[in-house]
Amino acid sequence: MRIALVGCGGVGRAFLKLMGEKGATSREKDLNIQVNYIIDVDGGIYSPEGVDCRKLHEFLERGGRVADYPAGGSYDINLERGLSQGDMDVMVELTPTNKDTGEPGLTHIRKALDRGTHVVTGNKGPILLAYRELNELAARRGVQLGIGCTTGGALPSINAGLIDMAGAEIESIEGILNGSTNFILKEMEERGVEYGEALKRAQELGIAETDPRLDVEGWDTASKLLILTNVLMAGDKTLEDIGVEGITGLTPEDIAAAREEGSRYKLIGRSQVIEGKVVMSVEAEKVGVEHTLYGVEGKNKAVRYTSSTLGDLTVIGGASGTIPAAASIYRDIVNIARGYRFSQ
Amino acid sequence: MRIALVGCGGVGRAFLKLMGEKGATSREKDLNIQVNYIIDVDGGIYSPEGVDCRKLHEFLERGGRVADYPAGGSYDINLERGLSQGDMDVMVELTPTNKDTGEPGLTHIRKALDRGTHVVTGNKGPILLAYRELNELAARRGVQLGIGCTTGGALPSINAGLIDMAGAEIESIEGILNGSTNFILKEMEERGVEYGEALKRAQELGIAETDPRLDVEGWDTASKLLILTNVLMAGDKTLEDIGVEGITGLTPEDIAAAREEGSRYKLIGRSQVIEGKVVMSVEAEKVGVEHTLYGVEGKNKAVRYTSSTLGDLTVIGGASGTIPAAASIYRDIVNIARGYRFSQ
Repeated sequence: MRIALVGCGGVGRAFLKLMGEKGATSREKDLNIQVNYIIDVDGGIYSPEGVDCRKLHEFLERGGRVADYPAGGSYDINLERGLSQGDMDVMVELTPTNKDTGEPGLTHIRKALDRGTHVVTGNKGPILLAYRELNELAARRGVQLGIGCTTGGALPSINAGLIDMAGAEIESIEGILNGSTNFILKEMEERGVEYGEALKRAQELGIAETDPRLDVEGWDTASKLLILTNVLMAGDKTLEDIGVEGITGLTPEDIAAAREEGSRYKLIGRSQVIEGKVVMSVEAEKVGVEHTLYGVEGKNKAVRYTSSTLGDLTVIGGASGTIPAAASIYRDIVNIARGYRFSQ
Repeated sequence: MRIALVGCGGVGRAFLKLMGEKGATSREKDLNIQVNYIIDVDGGIYSPEGVDCRKLHEFLERGGRVADYPAGGSYDINLERGLSQGDMDVMVELTPTNKDTGEPGLTHIRKALDRGTHVVTGNKGPILLAYRELNELAARRGVQLGIGCTTGGALPSINAGLIDMAGAEIESIEGILNGSTNFILKEMEERGVEYGEALKRAQELGIAETDPRLDVEGWDTASKLLILTNVLMAGDKTLEDIGVEGITGLTPEDIAAAREEGSRYKLIGRSQVIEGKVVMSVEAEKVGVEHTLYGVEGKNKAVRYTSSTLGDLTVIGGASGTIPAAASIYRDIVNIARGYRFSQ
């Protein structure tokens, strides 16, 4: 599999690091996964034999720019020219996300799919705005669109719904899909502090963003829930279909009262089929000790599916950081190389 | 996909029921999954257009035998003849398991793979005895061997390891892989009763077998752990490589003491890479409230994988009974039809 990496931010660089570390002992060596293109805002690198990812990663870590990379055998390239050369099997789209326009990722993904190139992305914008269109385009062109990284990174939430629940009708999705809020709730519970103080600590530790609104007001959870629902329940929902409440209104008293009765507050995204319709919500809910989501702690994430034939399935995991995110991109590539058809 | 069902016991019949219920609204209708052959000890049915599974299931439930099924368009057939007709895409092998010889399943599976037919099975015997041989045969013939049902039924333990951890090296496997022992431990904990009394209750409820030794002495867990380890850690281990202890020695005092410190006993199967070698064990272990396996209750099952790149992944689920087991057979068929290559 010949990869084009488009976008060299945190996850893009972690992907190069991961690819540099994969050696002859990796279980996927038979798949011949190599990076032939690296395309960033300021320039591109091309090597028909595969770029030395370890060297390139070191160069970028030392402050180098893609445009200035001197290694032999490569020359300037852009996405357009790369696509037209016909030696790109998978485009990995990791440019910065824009949830209003989806650009530049949306255009990149459209072009690649249209040319018959598989796409794997961690870029939420295009998927939130145009999943159905892109999925249909992929199906028409007979290629795959891997989006596992957009709904919890290393947590295999889409995989679990598509592959591990294959053949069952999913009746409900409930998930703890945002690590920062889960960490803040844990802080409030363990240390009895106010929301504001817990948030501050999360920010100090780099777990919450400087502008935490997307997380704590529930919109990050809502975005991931929306993608899961549209993929797994064949829906065509938008963010406006979700009743969204965050965790900012919770007091230490609420949390202490829940603890008294053996429960914990968790920010839960939920999609449920009620009388044939999908009903969606995001809100802080009390979860008892016997619920499989009770033990999902700290920065962890989880999702639970129910069905009548395969019963319930809960997956818990989703290590945070750029390496696990890159590993989830790599996972989609491996599964595509092994023949799996995500797009239906 | 044209299916041959071989073996019409509990899971086989549940599979017919499930297939009978799948209709035009199922998400897999594009895969055209139909049952063309049913082969039981006393006879066989063949229909090139697909057997009416609903009718056949009703006939069998009323006490009918496969050999006596009168519905039109079908005629007597056996596996040999079926395989030679070349219109069988997947053989579903569900004859009774024999852990000493693997027969008759082992011969059925060998023949089908050798003829270039995919195989999906819930029959542990052949997989325990000959997984590596069968997997290599499947790879040589370019067909798939789906064995998800053999390691926890509806719990997608193999899927999670192969597909959800794709591209990561699995460093450890730990699992609660046996529902009956998990139920017995819960009974002892909640009601403070002796092991013998908890076992009796599990037997009354049909959760434990009349001869419970395979379960309570840890050998069922060991069998499943062995299959997972050989598939996911590319091992060639046998049951003799596992140190196995069951739950029969646990006293109400042990369990109360664990409870005092906020822990629970769980029967854990574990495979761990230590200094480059895989070390395997099955034993009752104390698990604290923050461990993701703590909340795995009653008849549920779970497995947890660790890796350096994708972090930890825990999957909890695995509804018991013949319908979930049949649904896990169907899941493997759907994933094969969607192109996934289990055999590497």
